[in-house]
Amino acid sequence: MIRLECDYAEGAHERILRRLFETNLEQTPGYGEDHYCARAREYIRDLCRDGSLDVHFLVGGTQTNAAVITAGLRPHQGVIAASSGHIAVHESGAIESYGHKVITLPSGDGKLSALSVRRVYENHWDDVTHEHMVQPAMVYISQPTENGTLYSRAELEDIWDVCRDCGLLLYIDGARLGYGLMSEACDVTLPELACLCDAFSIGGTKQGMLFGEALVLSNPALKRDFRYIMKQHGGMLAKGRLLGVQFCSMLEDGLYFDLAREADKLAMDIRRIFEDRGFPMLFDSYTNQQYPVLPDHLLAQLEKRFAFCFWEKVDGEHTAVRVCTSWATERRAVKELVDALDRILGP
Amino acid sequence: MIRLECDYAEGAHERILRRLFETNLEQTPGYGEDHYCARAREYIRDLCRDGSLDVHFLVGGTQTNAAVITAGLRPHQGVIAASSGHIAVHESGAIESYGHKVITLPSGDGKLSALSVRRVYENHWDDVTHEHMVQPAMVYISQPTENGTLYSRAELEDIWDVCRDCGLLLYIDGARLGYGLMSEACDVTLPELACLCDAFSIGGTKQGMLFGEALVLSNPALKRDFRYIMKQHGGMLAKGRLLGVQFCSMLEDGLYFDLAREADKLAMDIRRIFEDRGFPMLFDSYTNQQYPVLPDHLLAQLEKRFAFCFWEKVDGEHTAVRVCTSWATERRAVKELVDALDRILGP
Amino acid sequence: MIRLECDYAEGAHERILRRLFETNLEQTPGYGEDHYCARAREYIRDLCRDGSLDVHFLVGGTQTNAAVITAGLRPHQGVIAASSGHIAVHESGAIESYGHKVITLPSGDGKLSALSVRRVYENHWDDVTHEHMVQPAMVYISQPTENGTLYSRAELEDIWDVCRDCGLLLYIDGARLGYGLMSEACDVTLPELACLCDAFSIGGTKQGMLFGEALVLSNPALKRDFRYIMKQHGGMLAKGRLLGVQFCSMLEDGLYFDLAREADKLAMDIRRIFEDRGFPMLFDSYTNQQYPVLPDHLLAQLEKRFAFCFWEKVDGEHTAVRVCTSWATERRAVKELVDALDRILGP
Amino acid sequence: MIRLECDYAEGAHERILRRLFETNLEQTPGYGEDHYCARAREYIRDLCRDGSLDVHFLVGGTQTNAAVITAGLRPHQGVIAASSGHIAVHESGAIESYGHKVITLPSGDGKLSALSVRRVYENHWDDVTHEHMVQPAMVYISQPTENGTLYSRAELEDIWDVCRDCGLLLYIDGARLGYGLMSEACDVTLPELACLCDAFSIGGTKQGMLFGEALVLSNPALKRDFRYIMKQHGGMLAKGRLLGVQFCSMLEDGLYFDLAREADKLAMDIRRIFEDRGFPMLFDSYTNQQYPVLPDHLLAQLEKRFAFCFWEKVDGEHTAVRVCTSWATERRAVKELVDALDRILGP
Repeated sequence: MIRLECDYAEGAHERILRRLFETNLEQTPGYGEDHYCARAREYIRDLCRDGSLDVHFLVGGTQTNAAVITAGLRPHQGVIAASSGHIAVHESGAIESYGHKVITLPSGDGKLSALSVRRVYENHWDDVTHEHMVQPAMVYISQPTENGTLYSRAELEDIWDVCRDCGLLLYIDGARLGYGLMSEACDVTLPELACLCDAFSIGGTKQGMLFGEALVLSNPALKRDFRYIMKQHGGMLAKGRLLGVQFCSMLEDGLYFDLAREADKLAMDIRRIFEDRGFPMLFDSYTNQQYPVLPDHLLAQLEKRFAFCFWEKVDGEHTAVRVCTSWATERRAVKELVDALDRILGP
Repeated sequence: MIRLECDYAEGAHERILRRLFETNLEQTPGYGEDHYCARAREYIRDLCRDGSLDVHFLVGGTQTNAAVITAGLRPHQGVIAASSGHIAVHESGAIESYGHKVITLPSGDGKLSALSVRRVYENHWDDVTHEHMVQPAMVYISQPTENGTLYSRAELEDIWDVCRDCGLLLYIDGARLGYGLMSEACDVTLPELACLCDAFSIGGTKQGMLFGEALVLSNPALKRDFRYIMKQHGGMLAKGRLLGVQFCSMLEDGLYFDLAREADKLAMDIRRIFEDRGFPMLFDSYTNQQYPVLPDHLLAQLEKRFAFCFWEKVDGEHTAVRVCTSWATERRAVKELVDALDRILGP
Repeated sequence: MIRLECDYAEGAHERILRRLFETNLEQTPGYGEDHYCARAREYIRDLCRDGSLDVHFLVGGTQTNAAVITAGLRPHQGVIAASSGHIAVHESGAIESYGHKVITLPSGDGKLSALSVRRVYENHWDDVTHEHMVQPAMVYISQPTENGTLYSRAELEDIWDVCRDCGLLLYIDGARLGYGLMSEACDVTLPELACLCDAFSIGGTKQGMLFGEALVLSNPALKRDFRYIMKQHGGMLAKGRLLGVQFCSMLEDGLYFDLAREADKLAMDIRRIFEDRGFPMLFDSYTNQQYPVLPDHLLAQLEKRFAFCFWEKVDGEHTAVRVCTSWATERRAVKELVDALDRILGP
Repeated sequence: MIRLECDYAEGAHERILRRLFETNLEQTPGYGEDHYCARAREYIRDLCRDGSLDVHFLVGGTQTNAAVITAGLRPHQGVIAASSGHIAVHESGAIESYGHKVITLPSGDGKLSALSVRRVYENHWDDVTHEHMVQPAMVYISQPTENGTLYSRAELEDIWDVCRDCGLLLYIDGARLGYGLMSEACDVTLPELACLCDAFSIGGTKQGMLFGEALVLSNPALKRDFRYIMKQHGGMLAKGRLLGVQFCSMLEDGLYFDLAREADKLAMDIRRIFEDRGFPMLFDSYTNQQYPVLPDHLLAQLEKRFAFCFWEKVDGEHTAVRVCTSWATERRAVKELVDALDRILGP
């Protein structure tokens, strides 16, 4: 069985485990105040070309999102997100559990437009009883989105302009940021992205680390007392150095980006394999998640050998699945997929 | 100026004020444990023909909704509502402030269908990662809805069946319940409604009381410790007898229903006045809230003499407004509206 | 039976009911945006001699306390209170229900000292893992306290100095503020008090109104968006004018203070009656709540005719009770108490 | 420098790292549904001799405590804890952040007594306005406590009896459970402890794992839907197998207990070293945390070579410190401590 259903099915890149071994018996302070975390913070500031950024390392994405969103909102405020946004559907209501509404906007491809953000903001204030409504105060977007799609630099600039105009905070969830930045279709760099938001995350779990997300804060209001909120929300690790060591391993020579670039390439190969055979894509993704729409009978045959993630029934006879590559996907897997398709469909 | 924009612009029916005067210097226990509250509870149990119901009196609708919903949910659970539901849009995120997601379903007329409830429930469980999603555990509907529309008995039965089938609690927000029950189009009685849900409210504020809502609980799980939650959520009144006295005044001889019936009749007169002159209604309401769609130039002239509530722009030249009657609306107001229309449009 | 167990056993001063009658059919905007609320706000600003204050009218004390405290705290912050403070023991965990810890300090008489506030603040920051602790960010005191005791002006100044020094907000719960200000032992005026805190409340429920508290905000950070939080927390009344009319009735000519002064006098009479007969007081109260410690056999006899509030068992044979006067207490009640004591104890 | 200030200064026992290496490229389902977690669950059920237990693996202690406590409480309920309990002081208000009060009881040594639990429970119900108070519904104790002290089997039985009698849930925080169970002074076994509570945890972070806690649930009310709450509260790990692999490594042949026993022995050696020289202990601990009270001048000299954790100033000239051993402490460290003391004090 070749599993292509998600990007967190394996452990971690070997270098990470090796480094954990090497540093294992060293005694360090806990809770992220060790020298590995310090060095990893420097790597990230250097990559973003901004020495003023605050960088925190958290255990996972749910805690990261909840902590930064909660840090930025007062009790009556909510966060705007696409209806397919991770915080809106796949975090068990973590944002609401801390008291805040996720104000969802419909989205075909997982992206928000600057216009839709402006509209939901203005609609709020137009209502004569706006004080009876949750006040929009932050915008949450994912780069790449949960559907694999990407914001262009121009789109990010437009959203950022609207946010500054309306006094909204902008947070970019980068759970798969590497796959986004390394995509052939991406026209925004890390330093540019860092300038176009109040906070963003750099995901590790789905990009070859055992676990861990880096949260990068540029807005001083979010920086203040952030470690308290991180601790309260279960995002702080006692042996914080584990996060530091992992991020150092990934960032010291660009391994993080190399692994992502390679995974994206394999994903685009898979996309082309399906498109060449006439199968459309549900979303126009250029990153490591691809969503082919397949006839059910073909899917049934492929699934004898490959594990995909069910996405949705498109019609009575077709199903969209998610096919993921990752830092651990082997080229051989793609070759086998081609062979299987040729065998089933004829050459 | 004749104000028809809402149903809480005046104080209270005179009988209520008179009773408050008469009972003013009597000393009673606080927090709803007085004999007026006791008697009002009996009136409601009698009207519902169910002596086993728990009845609580709360200050306002926001507290009532938040208390009963919170009482019924565990931390990971949410409440299903129409996207136009009061808890979804006009209570400043009170439900979320206590940790719970409002799972909204689109609705043209403010109603939920049994089918849509079943679907959202099943979609939740179909998802392989359903534990990453908020679990639907309660359904919130309003009778009548925020758009003035009504559920028929058959529709309520269908929703109740789905709820019992799926293990969902059903709560009916009756902020305007009297206007609903007394409508010419309503085919459900109070005892029937009381049997078709786990909890419902009987609104006072919009039906001639100074303030106050009765909350009726039939499900033992909601009954348990409810007074704690009511106190915590700011729904308990120190001088609780004020609520008891008011509900007694309204229910002892059916005044509550008489006032509502008369207001509904005036509302239907207004509806016919507009429809006879060719103006359509945004919603098919048979209760005290009517939503005529009017040409902007006509609206501008009417608003010199009448206050309506802006609802939405229908197109570049037409606007829907809400026109409300209440226990305090005078027949004369309707007569003046006819005259004004005839003057503007010609007879 | 003469009930002296609390100060909210009756309805309201007659003037209030009369004004509600007179204004009953007037049509006004809802939610506190009417002209009665506007006028009542002006009365309060004038009494405080500060035109820059924001004044809101809320339904009850629990909502008032929760709204102002929540408005001032970020998620990781808590509010310091005496262990006997109302928010710490008698609001069903409302503060915690919105996510915040009440950091309690032991207190013999219900008061906090400036020194204890400073110490708890400094202890927090001294801890090497202070980020693992709730950060103190606000101080809650009651004037008078739940034990009837009073802060002197010097004590308030000291607390206020510590608060400003440490960056703590100071909120004064004035649920019985009138009884405090009118006490023979009070050396602080309303304008002085208004200058010595970030926010304070002026209670109505326990001082002759049907219900209602005024919340006075001087700190701009608390003012911002306060109406949203008030609505979310169930503190906003649809027919807000009821609060405006009541506060106008009480404040237009000082009725609020006259009633409180008279109640305080009766309370001091009761105190002396007990002290003259050798019964000590549990707390040194000069306001409308008195706490005599009585032999159980005497108490049993008195309770045939008088209702007191049980406070605590002092030892095997003595009990402390709370004896309350209010705007509604009659001089005759005190006379009867003397007579009863003389009858039982001999003259 | 020899660091004895905490028990999480190093990485993990070597076997754990080795196993992570060996299993690294295996593909498994995420979120704890892999076969390593399944096996680790079996180990724990076997050790507890109860096949009906639910076992979950969470990232850290704060999330574990918050998840189980929140799972067991309704909105108006609180959890009883010693004032020194970890949830009361060192989790940044996580319990409150989910809406619940921690009802603290003073405790000299970190333990609660059955009697004090019963008293706080009864006091709640005795109050005539008990609905205005947070309802005690759960008891939180730590075994061993944050002060290193231990509950005897008889004490646990007494607490458990009171809990069942009063309808209180009992949760035992076992962040250092191994150190407790292996102590020479411990007379309760794991299967016994598992029968004396509704839930308990088995800590990994402080006992030789990289991170991770096992949560063991016996009460069906807590079991229900627990994975949702675990996800919502940031306790669920995407690559859950990391927790499974670690717990398997620790439990397959009792390594977890062997490491704890050895650490306890070294701690007792340290205790005796200090006691033999006349230095008292702040707490009567028989586990891996020891609290000698030392003259400040001696402490200053020792700290040139050893790192301890400051605990509290005992008087003007003496300080209590925490000295921790762990799975990673070497016998040589104890030897050096003796030598240092002899050098300073004379033999």
